[in-house]
Amino acid sequence: MANKVIITCAITGGIHTPTLSDALPYKPADLASQAIEAAEAGAAILHIHARDPETGAPTGSPDVYRQFLPIIKQGTDAVINLTTGGSPDMTPEDRLAGALTFSPEMCSLNMGSMNFSFHDMGRKVKEWKFAWEDQYILDSEKFIFRNTFADIRRNYELLSDHGTRFEHECYDIGHLYNLAYFVDKGVAKPPFFIQSIFGILGGIGGDLDNVMFMKRTADRLFGKDYVWSVLGAGKYQMPVCTMAAQLGGNVRVGLEDSLFIGRGKLASSNAEQVRKIVRIIGEMGLEPATADEARQMLALKGADRTQI
Amino acid sequence: MANKVIITCAITGGIHTPTLSDALPYKPADLASQAIEAAEAGAAILHIHARDPETGAPTGSPDVYRQFLPIIKQGTDAVINLTTGGSPDMTPEDRLAGALTFSPEMCSLNMGSMNFSFHDMGRKVKEWKFAWEDQYILDSEKFIFRNTFADIRRNYELLSDHGTRFEHECYDIGHLYNLAYFVDKGVAKPPFFIQSIFGILGGIGGDLDNVMFMKRTADRLFGKDYVWSVLGAGKYQMPVCTMAAQLGGNVRVGLEDSLFIGRGKLASSNAEQVRKIVRIIGEMGLEPATADEARQMLALKGADRTQI
Amino acid sequence: MANKVIITCAITGGIHTPTLSDALPYKPADLASQAIEAAEAGAAILHIHARDPETGAPTGSPDVYRQFLPIIKQGTDAVINLTTGGSPDMTPEDRLAGALTFSPEMCSLNMGSMNFSFHDMGRKVKEWKFAWEDQYILDSEKFIFRNTFADIRRNYELLSDHGTRFEHECYDIGHLYNLAYFVDKGVAKPPFFIQSIFGILGGIGGDLDNVMFMKRTADRLFGKDYVWSVLGAGKYQMPVCTMAAQLGGNVRVGLEDSLFIGRGKLASSNAEQVRKIVRIIGEMGLEPATADEARQMLALKGADRTQI
Amino acid sequence: MANKVIITCAITGGIHTPTLSDALPYKPADLASQAIEAAEAGAAILHIHARDPETGAPTGSPDVYRQFLPIIKQGTDAVINLTTGGSPDMTPEDRLAGALTFSPEMCSLNMGSMNFSFHDMGRKVKEWKFAWEDQYILDSEKFIFRNTFADIRRNYELLSDHGTRFEHECYDIGHLYNLAYFVDKGVAKPPFFIQSIFGILGGIGGDLDNVMFMKRTADRLFGKDYVWSVLGAGKYQMPVCTMAAQLGGNVRVGLEDSLFIGRGKLASSNAEQVRKIVRIIGEMGLEPATADEARQMLALKGADRTQI
Ligand SMILES: [Zn+2]
Ligand SMILES: [Zn+2]
Ligand SMILES: [Zn+2]
Ligand SMILES: [Zn+2]
Repeated sequence: MANKVIITCAITGGIHTPTLSDALPYKPADLASQAIEAAEAGAAILHIHARDPETGAPTGSPDVYRQFLPIIKQGTDAVINLTTGGSPDMTPEDRLAGALTFSPEMCSLNMGSMNFSFHDMGRKVKEWKFAWEDQYILDSEKFIFRNTFADIRRNYELLSDHGTRFEHECYDIGHLYNLAYFVDKGVAKPPFFIQSIFGILGGIGGDLDNVMFMKRTADRLFGKDYVWSVLGAGKYQMPVCTMAAQLGGNVRVGLEDSLFIGRGKLASSNAEQVRKIVRIIGEMGLEPATADEARQMLALKGADRTQI
Repeated sequence: MANKVIITCAITGGIHTPTLSDALPYKPADLASQAIEAAEAGAAILHIHARDPETGAPTGSPDVYRQFLPIIKQGTDAVINLTTGGSPDMTPEDRLAGALTFSPEMCSLNMGSMNFSFHDMGRKVKEWKFAWEDQYILDSEKFIFRNTFADIRRNYELLSDHGTRFEHECYDIGHLYNLAYFVDKGVAKPPFFIQSIFGILGGIGGDLDNVMFMKRTADRLFGKDYVWSVLGAGKYQMPVCTMAAQLGGNVRVGLEDSLFIGRGKLASSNAEQVRKIVRIIGEMGLEPATADEARQMLALKGADRTQI
Repeated sequence: MANKVIITCAITGGIHTPTLSDALPYKPADLASQAIEAAEAGAAILHIHARDPETGAPTGSPDVYRQFLPIIKQGTDAVINLTTGGSPDMTPEDRLAGALTFSPEMCSLNMGSMNFSFHDMGRKVKEWKFAWEDQYILDSEKFIFRNTFADIRRNYELLSDHGTRFEHECYDIGHLYNLAYFVDKGVAKPPFFIQSIFGILGGIGGDLDNVMFMKRTADRLFGKDYVWSVLGAGKYQMPVCTMAAQLGGNVRVGLEDSLFIGRGKLASSNAEQVRKIVRIIGEMGLEPATADEARQMLALKGADRTQI
Repeated sequence: MANKVIITCAITGGIHTPTLSDALPYKPADLASQAIEAAEAGAAILHIHARDPETGAPTGSPDVYRQFLPIIKQGTDAVINLTTGGSPDMTPEDRLAGALTFSPEMCSLNMGSMNFSFHDMGRKVKEWKFAWEDQYILDSEKFIFRNTFADIRRNYELLSDHGTRFEHECYDIGHLYNLAYFVDKGVAKPPFFIQSIFGILGGIGGDLDNVMFMKRTADRLFGKDYVWSVLGAGKYQMPVCTMAAQLGGNVRVGLEDSLFIGRGKLASSNAEQVRKIVRIIGEMGLEPATADEARQMLALKGADRTQI
């Protein structure tokens, strides 16, 4: 499968707010239909967050997940990957509730604590759709995305019984070393799926030199035991993905990571971004991996062994 | 001053505990004498933390600082640089108290939140000198070193009236981007003194490839507006410093960063580490900068304008 | 012109032989029509070699150039760039004859001596179209591409009266240092157009890490005084160009550099490769520079001041 | 032998001329005594060229070698490594004569053709000791150091019967790819001893970024099958060696590579440079490998199986 690229699509996330793009889905039906359309366009993995169906505010409530996860499962065989990153307002327990309830094939696992800030993101907005959005964005100046060594260890432990495997989100070089610590301790098991993230304020920047250095460091620390994927925030989305694909890596797109499809142009849907990266890798002679190819590359347990 | 290297010596820090090395100073007289001896050996800057005179536990109390800072000032003209990093038990206010009280020429400023863990450090210890040490070390598995964007902004604001300049402590590549954010906002003023830190669990590792990449990234982000220094934790101390010196950078040594002078061999004092790095840079044709040369390179206000 | 990419198309070169691809032009009419079509597809610069009209063997004869250069000039306003690299059989004088005769806007200038070998290239060929081809390829095991410091200096001198500017062909990191030597001596004048070449046996390989390192080294040596372009030989053509375009560089394609359009698939024409790279950079939000934009970026004298 | 560093000392070479330093040995007795002294100082390998006993001009004559090689062999058990690089005036046959005659444990093997120029080296000289020196230096502007693929293949073939192993001299990144070509063909046998050379005009420069990149590329191409050593020309000698030692590499010093011991200060002997690098690596906790340790690391046949 040397010429196959696993495309993950992150449908909505917990950062962008509804006012920033009309395309950002938060109603269960929209989340499901955009997810299914993204899978049809070439995404093998769907990275999923829940949103309050009325206000679009991030939530980790299993009751909300239940309103759309089964629809997605019925509509596509793509791998469902639930966040454990959540959003600034959630406790560690809130963040894990979805994964513990639905026992998905994959969930995200954030490999370190960090500032995660987007307080300048709403500057140009004149009128907000919902009351919570403005302060939510401003408060991120004070936000620490909490993922202590004790937290990470606990997540590995709690989810190991579920056979759920991890999208190890690494926002900086040090996060690779944190993962190496857990590999050393025998807690993390190969193949490690590493999602390197570029361009978040608080993490490593989106410059392409960083993309290459991240891979080189992962090569040094993990040899052939890892499967590499990347995402770039905002304007870095396509450059970072293009570069990683050239280096033999996999890619993540989706409205969680960027609301845009080109300079100053909002994407109309998650699928539009998937189609764009499919075209780009196609020019390189590469093809999207199917969901089952992704399952094989990442040693996943299969959709039938989840509680969705 | 092309062949001058600013040597900072970090006398005791807030991480190592008294049981780990008899040489680690915590009594005011010992802190002062080791600091002065380090300066005589070639350190131009003394990076200072306070310790409880009885138990050796980290403290930020101005009353404790007052027991030894004047002795240091009287004994040497080296630049006094007070920590604002403190230790896991301190609040943001505790951490700033020393700098606000003494208005030093420099203080440290940590450029991001992160895990900062050393929970495996006491494994080999059979008997502890003080009751607090064991749990203090174990608890670091849960520790987040808090430095949000709002915190950092506040520190710049509070200290700008003092004319105190900053040792910008950067534990990962992202921290350089955080500094770039404050440069962009006009809050940070050149020349930026950047202390890149390698080998702390939670931050970027101590491998030499990282040292070069850190410099390259700083070059890209700050051009000629910064003065670079490095420290390596534990066994990385001398390799990281040697390499940075070769690249035109400055160095930090001291018992805060490593308790050792060679493989498995404890250092007998801070000055012993200073003397070692002085010999190494000497082989390269480099010399330690004097305190006044350091003041000029870093645009410091001068010892007479502090409240020590 | 931040989002403009100068596309150079190298129509036929002096390495590939007619048997290797039916699309490789060597008759004057074919050279002209493929060049014009490449320009129409988006190439701003046409890098030109001559071939014997009967046998397709490389030649530097002005008489042969005269059979198609005027046709190209009449058919397109693209910049005409004549090789001075020639082929293994030519003397230094042969190699310069075209440039001295036609005084083009640009000519190539190879920045160092090196092995330049392709002796394994004909292994799969059963029957050769022309008698010279087989031995020509095998002999390259013994070939040294001669470009001594004295030769390079002489080329600068001979062509400076013509106002012809240079495509500085750099096949390895050392060639950048060679150029830096001539910059230091005041012989080379900015803006330097640097063509970095990857994947020739004898030069630096086509791995993408090399592309980034080449740029980093050029940045260090030449700062803002250079305009960067790349070419990748054979299978490296599109990956190398894609990566450089992402890094803000310019690109060269064409049948001189690769006979292929995809894995194992021969290109049907030079223009087909131009169209492919135009699509790729288009996905990045970039556009081909026009010939006049290229002239401006490279400080060229203009087509009307040549002897074509 | 993780903390052992193989020190090679290159006693006289074929580039520097007698006028440039009184310490440069060319009389048989001086060559022998400096070589033995260098070995006593810590060199495990002696890289040897011959010089005309009267004029100091480079020679490849076995008759000249015979005047001092046996003395060296008797005086030290260090590995004797004969050049096949020779000097600009020698034919390929001249260059091989010594190795074919004496069947040494090692000989050098230059991995590519290149410009190798030092024509500015004599600018400050007012009076030359010997008539040949001035023109010899000036002529290097026209010099190509010839090592075609066919030449290299022939050297492997001619010397394979002798059990002589190679110091693969790589002056640029492409030379590593050339070696990889011969590895691929099954001609070169591991462990490959790679001597990376920095700072020769015509090859890769002496900047430390290049040293790290050279190692990274070798790691990628040869994995664990190679033993790495470096040399830096002139002022780059000690920085390049220091850096490589930190990266786990081995080092070459000696008057062939640099006539200096510090900024503007001529070395008084080869041994003085050996002693300096021994001190530097000592500060890193590293020790010089003995000759027998070097033999084991490089799989050499032993001094008793040579014709010296
Ligand atoms: Zn997410
Ligand atoms: Zn500190
Ligand atoms: Zn050409
Ligand atoms: Zn030699």
